[in-house]
Amino acid sequence: MKSDLDRLMKDQNIDALFVSGSSMHNPPMYYFTGDVHLTKADLIKLPGKDAVLFYNYMERDEAAAAGLTTRPLDDYDIRPLLEETGGDLLSAVALRYKHMLADLGFDSGRMAVYGQMDAGSSYGIFSRLAELVPGLEIVPEAGGLEIAYASGESLLMAARETKDEAEIDRIRRMGTVTVEVVDRTAKFLQSHKVVDDTLVMEDGAPLTIGHVKSRIDLWAAELGVTNPKGCIFAIGQDAGVPHSAGSDDDPLRLGQTIVFDIFLQEAGGGYFFDFTRTWCLGYAPPEVQAVYDDVRAVFDELMAGLVAGASLSQLQTHTCELFAQRGHPTIETHPGTTDGYVHGIAHGLGLDVHEAPSARNEAGALKPGVVVTVEPALYYPERGMGVRLEDCIAVHPDGTIENLGEYPYDLVLPMGM
Amino acid sequence: MKSDLDRLMKDQNIDALFVSGSSMHNPPMYYFTGDVHLTKADLIKLPGKDAVLFYNYMERDEAAAAGLTTRPLDDYDIRPLLEETGGDLLSAVALRYKHMLADLGFDSGRMAVYGQMDAGSSYGIFSRLAELVPGLEIVPEAGGLEIAYASGESLLMAARETKDEAEIDRIRRMGTVTVEVVDRTAKFLQSHKVVDDTLVMEDGAPLTIGHVKSRIDLWAAELGVTNPKGCIFAIGQDAGVPHSAGSDDDPLRLGQTIVFDIFLQEAGGGYFFDFTRTWCLGYAPPEVQAVYDDVRAVFDELMAGLVAGASLSQLQTHTCELFAQRGHPTIETHPGTTDGYVHGIAHGLGLDVHEAPSARNEAGALKPGVVVTVEPALYYPERGMGVRLEDCIAVHPDGTIENLGEYPYDLVLPMGM
Repeated sequence: MKSDLDRLMKDQNIDALFVSGSSMHNPPMYYFTGDVHLTKADLIKLPGKDAVLFYNYMERDEAAAAGLTTRPLDDYDIRPLLEETGGDLLSAVALRYKHMLADLGFDSGRMAVYGQMDAGSSYGIFSRLAELVPGLEIVPEAGGLEIAYASGESLLMAARETKDEAEIDRIRRMGTVTVEVVDRTAKFLQSHKVVDDTLVMEDGAPLTIGHVKSRIDLWAAELGVTNPKGCIFAIGQDAGVPHSAGSDDDPLRLGQTIVFDIFLQEAGGGYFFDFTRTWCLGYAPPEVQAVYDDVRAVFDELMAGLVAGASLSQLQTHTCELFAQRGHPTIETHPGTTDGYVHGIAHGLGLDVHEAPSARNEAGALKPGVVVTVEPALYYPERGMGVRLEDCIAVHPDGTIENLGEYPYDLVLPMGM
Repeated sequence: MKSDLDRLMKDQNIDALFVSGSSMHNPPMYYFTGDVHLTKADLIKLPGKDAVLFYNYMERDEAAAAGLTTRPLDDYDIRPLLEETGGDLLSAVALRYKHMLADLGFDSGRMAVYGQMDAGSSYGIFSRLAELVPGLEIVPEAGGLEIAYASGESLLMAARETKDEAEIDRIRRMGTVTVEVVDRTAKFLQSHKVVDDTLVMEDGAPLTIGHVKSRIDLWAAELGVTNPKGCIFAIGQDAGVPHSAGSDDDPLRLGQTIVFDIFLQEAGGGYFFDFTRTWCLGYAPPEVQAVYDDVRAVFDELMAGLVAGASLSQLQTHTCELFAQRGHPTIETHPGTTDGYVHGIAHGLGLDVHEAPSARNEAGALKPGVVVTVEPALYYPERGMGVRLEDCIAVHPDGTIENLGEYPYDLVLPMGM
């Protein structure tokens, strides 16, 4: 958690953290500033000292609301720096950063760099900064790569991997909101008439996934949260593809699997929740029920067996074993398979919907303070089906494990009640 | 526009464009893929050839929906690459990129790099890629810097600077939605009772800015658009600070300036609109009315004088002159002032709310295809007031100038009607 930053910097021999970009939709900056509206800012954290936020003077009130030590970027006027660099903006920004670092007393050492920024601009600025400050070593980290949401890849991600109680409170609140939206969605679906095995609206037109997603966005707004990445609401063959978001024009038909994976976020770019249920409207065909029963049995066995400190990669292997015992291909028995169990069993979540720890990393574990998903699943795209169940759990300092958003797991949503 | 890419690559001697990151909230990727849900993808564009999208196999349906030439990233399995690089993930990704480029026939030349990514990861990957491919020159561009939304800074931004009719249609549609939300907001405010010069709700509690912003989010969702950056709804002294978003707990009082700057975006991370009105509830004190009258007069004069091809930096100078003639300080007469006219008169908008052209760049002009704001304003934070008016205009190929979202400019919103 944030209070670990100084220790982590010492352990990893990092002499400065440099964070850049907006405070919105930019987790590394938000982690320090909280929910304020800064279009563009820079932040420097040195060991044993408070982070210093550099802001544009036009945004001085927003910067003040962050509650950090602040300095106006306007003190480092870009115009003379542009003259000094012959009009090269990337070099001028690098020079500005050199001056900012120097004014905080940093002129050499190992610096880690974070923040969502344009890739070309980052490469340009930090290459030039490394040239301008001979004693500076920029330590690139892979923590920003979706492929690598593992604490070992990034100091800042290692801090974010464990949450304090205030952070867990916020995620729990998002769990409550998420369950409310899921429940409204179920009741909304069930409120429709069925004609020829298809849900229809008042005007007789088929209810589509696009209609359902619009309602979800509306309920999210009503409840004061956001749905920045959209949700997965995929039926039939789409449900058999883990990250297919679903097709807006698809009608909702009885007896097909619907994978509903929803990842709402606090307004302003704060904490996420991540939650999945699989539904069949009206009835479940026997082969769907059988696949669901296997996922549900594995889910129950995994949830019952969770203990603080457990290794996530072992949980992944265990999940593969359980599915293999039930006759399903898995990525361990059939690398590259798109049938059966094809993804990770768990990932952390917080300011990113995917963050450390990861089941794909040896070090991933149910350490006190982590918040992770548990999401066994089976996919059979050729058979037009997919089943995933996903809850979020928090591990508390006393070792207890809390389910942050409880909701029934039923496969069939009865229609025409 | 997009059809200019090959010409721009030739003119600027760029042999490859490389775009990385999500398709969501990442304009360079969205520009190619459109509204699809790709968590992480890479895209390479070579001269005279279609862009090629590299996607994760789990997201194959979403990738297909982009309508581009596609290849699965899974063909470049990261595991053997990690073995080759001794477990260094950034080097493994760089090696993957080398292979991807080679398979498209690119092994040397000048490559521009784009996409919202973690700054440290970008620096790490592209530094290593430059080492791995001796003939490769990575051309860093400043187009991703908020400070520099000017076409000269980036090839891709230069393409995005001019819009085709389909893009202008989408922005115009966002204008219609924006005006609808602004009108609902006005009527919502006017529907309230006033007690002691303060708007109150049914239960007698003061109506606050937080309440108004919640409604705005709700209406945006109802109308199928998003409000990813929040809006500015700032009263009194906050209205005097250009980028102050307003304080949620502030009550709405009569006779104070409210700057309402709203920048809604298409769902999924598409096109923005940008629009500002300034209101006084009930009445305007004479000194507020006088400041408003000056902004309005300048606004009307500027709008009446817009002609296709005109220089934006000359428009900026002209705006400063007009305000100076009326006795106000400006950033040209008083550099660094926070009183008077303190910012740019125009900026482009599209997939970013701020993009090329810019009034701060010599090359910025009302070229056919540009969509820009026109936003004269006066700020007097010490006097507790600010006034800004902002419309969006498009310049059509035949030279006509279209206002993309018309709405009354009235300062006073009458109460108790």
